[in-house]
Amino acid sequence: MTTLPTEKVAVIGGGSWATALVKILCEQPQVQVRWWLRNAEDIAHIRTYHHNPSYLSDVYLPPRKVKVCERLKESIRGAQYVILAIPAAYVQEPLREINATHLRDKRIVSAIKGMVPTTNQLVTDWMQDTYQVPLSHMCVIAGPCHAEEVALEKQSYLTIASTDQACAADFARLMTCRFVTAHPLADLYGVEYAAVMKNIVALASGITHGIGYGDNFQAVLVANAMQEIRRFVTAVDPRERDLSASAYLGDLLVTAYSQFSRNRLFGNMIGRGYSVKAAQLEMKMVAEGYFAAKSIYTMNQRYQVPMPITNAVYRILYEGAAPVHEMEELKKHLK
Amino acid sequence: MTTLPTEKVAVIGGGSWATALVKILCEQPQVQVRWWLRNAEDIAHIRTYHHNPSYLSDVYLPPRKVKVCERLKESIRGAQYVILAIPAAYVQEPLREINATHLRDKRIVSAIKGMVPTTNQLVTDWMQDTYQVPLSHMCVIAGPCHAEEVALEKQSYLTIASTDQACAADFARLMTCRFVTAHPLADLYGVEYAAVMKNIVALASGITHGIGYGDNFQAVLVANAMQEIRRFVTAVDPRERDLSASAYLGDLLVTAYSQFSRNRLFGNMIGRGYSVKAAQLEMKMVAEGYFAAKSIYTMNQRYQVPMPITNAVYRILYEGAAPVHEMEELKKHLK
Repeated sequence: MTTLPTEKVAVIGGGSWATALVKILCEQPQVQVRWWLRNAEDIAHIRTYHHNPSYLSDVYLPPRKVKVCERLKESIRGAQYVILAIPAAYVQEPLREINATHLRDKRIVSAIKGMVPTTNQLVTDWMQDTYQVPLSHMCVIAGPCHAEEVALEKQSYLTIASTDQACAADFARLMTCRFVTAHPLADLYGVEYAAVMKNIVALASGITHGIGYGDNFQAVLVANAMQEIRRFVTAVDPRERDLSASAYLGDLLVTAYSQFSRNRLFGNMIGRGYSVKAAQLEMKMVAEGYFAAKSIYTMNQRYQVPMPITNAVYRILYEGAAPVHEMEELKKHLK
Repeated sequence: MTTLPTEKVAVIGGGSWATALVKILCEQPQVQVRWWLRNAEDIAHIRTYHHNPSYLSDVYLPPRKVKVCERLKESIRGAQYVILAIPAAYVQEPLREINATHLRDKRIVSAIKGMVPTTNQLVTDWMQDTYQVPLSHMCVIAGPCHAEEVALEKQSYLTIASTDQACAADFARLMTCRFVTAHPLADLYGVEYAAVMKNIVALASGITHGIGYGDNFQAVLVANAMQEIRRFVTAVDPRERDLSASAYLGDLLVTAYSQFSRNRLFGNMIGRGYSVKAAQLEMKMVAEGYFAAKSIYTMNQRYQVPMPITNAVYRILYEGAAPVHEMEELKKHLK
């Protein structure tokens, strides 16, 4: 048996998706994971019991593969890959302790499906601006993938998008294991925007459900959403792309049809009459779609693409428009 | 108030979709419905109580709008439109009592989402061959529409496809009411084949669920199915079409994601180890996807389009292939 050279991968973030990614990485014999989590109690628990007490707590985290780190700087030292798996709204703060030098020559992988709210930027664009990471050094992980099903080792598929084919193919190899098949794809921006926008659709889907619309309406909403995503992505980054691929359509489906989607749940509460504030307080967290709606709406002031679904969600969340009224209006735009 | 000229519409079939269509038609002031049902007890019940005792039994069927008929010939006499709403497998027998003359100058509307099993033909092709109905006199009703939600008057959308624009537009007008919006579309064959194939996908979706695959896999399956439908429909009838429209994608979603889909339920039983025979006995009916799989598979011997999903379903249902094995094989084709 030949010994493969060790590949060090830093994982930044302690949520369920981060935990699922760590589990996938542990399947690779040559990979060593350096895992940064914010929560000191979680770190202590993982060191002692080899399980994340807060998320996917039945996933075993073998100590010979996974080293948890208090300091983010420590986790990325010597790593070839740095995976960002924190909600977009909270990505800036923990990265403050590093600068461009720390990330030089590393591949940055965004597992974030949201936009940086203070700058209305995709995470990859923000990383370019803030840390001078070249676009060709970045990948995005997409694909229909509930973390919970990864924990259960149910067959899942991921798409690794990058402008650099080799970068995508290399990282896709690290993400492929017994229960996950990962494919590389060249369309970084398309995949990243579609991943952001699907959370707005899930939110819209939740709102309609909360109001009392049924499955017939939801199917039409999702079909129209695919067309809205295509219009927007084509305006922002025109190129040939097959939006029925798993990275786009599959990802949208798993989110819009999941009863467990935080965005859908948030939307549902809004549809049932909760105020935005009350829904956020009740959920104790902010759904990515909340920020995505504002970012995409704001960006679209430049592109002026017809986006009735995003516009409706934006007006409900940010302008106090009545969900029932907005959906009555939206009905006229769907077909 | 001007009196609109009366439009007579014959509805052939007594199931839930037929009942929902009758309900929609009753919303039009000028429409008179002539409704043929096979079951004599249902006819007697509807005449006395104005409800269909077997399907959507809470839908009120106003006697001044709806006349039920024992004889099919009686129902179509004087009708401008004849709506066929019987499973494709059973469409031939009741139509035996009429011939081409009876249908002359009428518009034939297929609400059937299946193929005539003895000839492997679309219903519209079979009607052309058997009753010499010109293609331009036919429409297909498609769109994501559970009959149950129509009964509840939940906002739904339909697509009326015809090679004749005026025919599609005229009938779309009859299908549009308070709770249904119908749009005309020129792509008759595309819509009809997609409607047939979605039942195969629902069956595949049920099989994978029965075996134990999760939502991640299902989302990938559905995304790949859209690509399979596109390949097949493009081979059979090449033209520009946007498959993310509600008539195609929406219809697929409402079927593949519905817990109530008969095709999905049938597939689920197969996935859990029932034999085809046992599953059919238990369900007391035959799912359309069962015949569709054979028809599309057989047609594709001519076109040789890559169709891993249809092929897998065909081999499981007709060649006794083991579901677990076929899905293991299928996994390799998905991405």
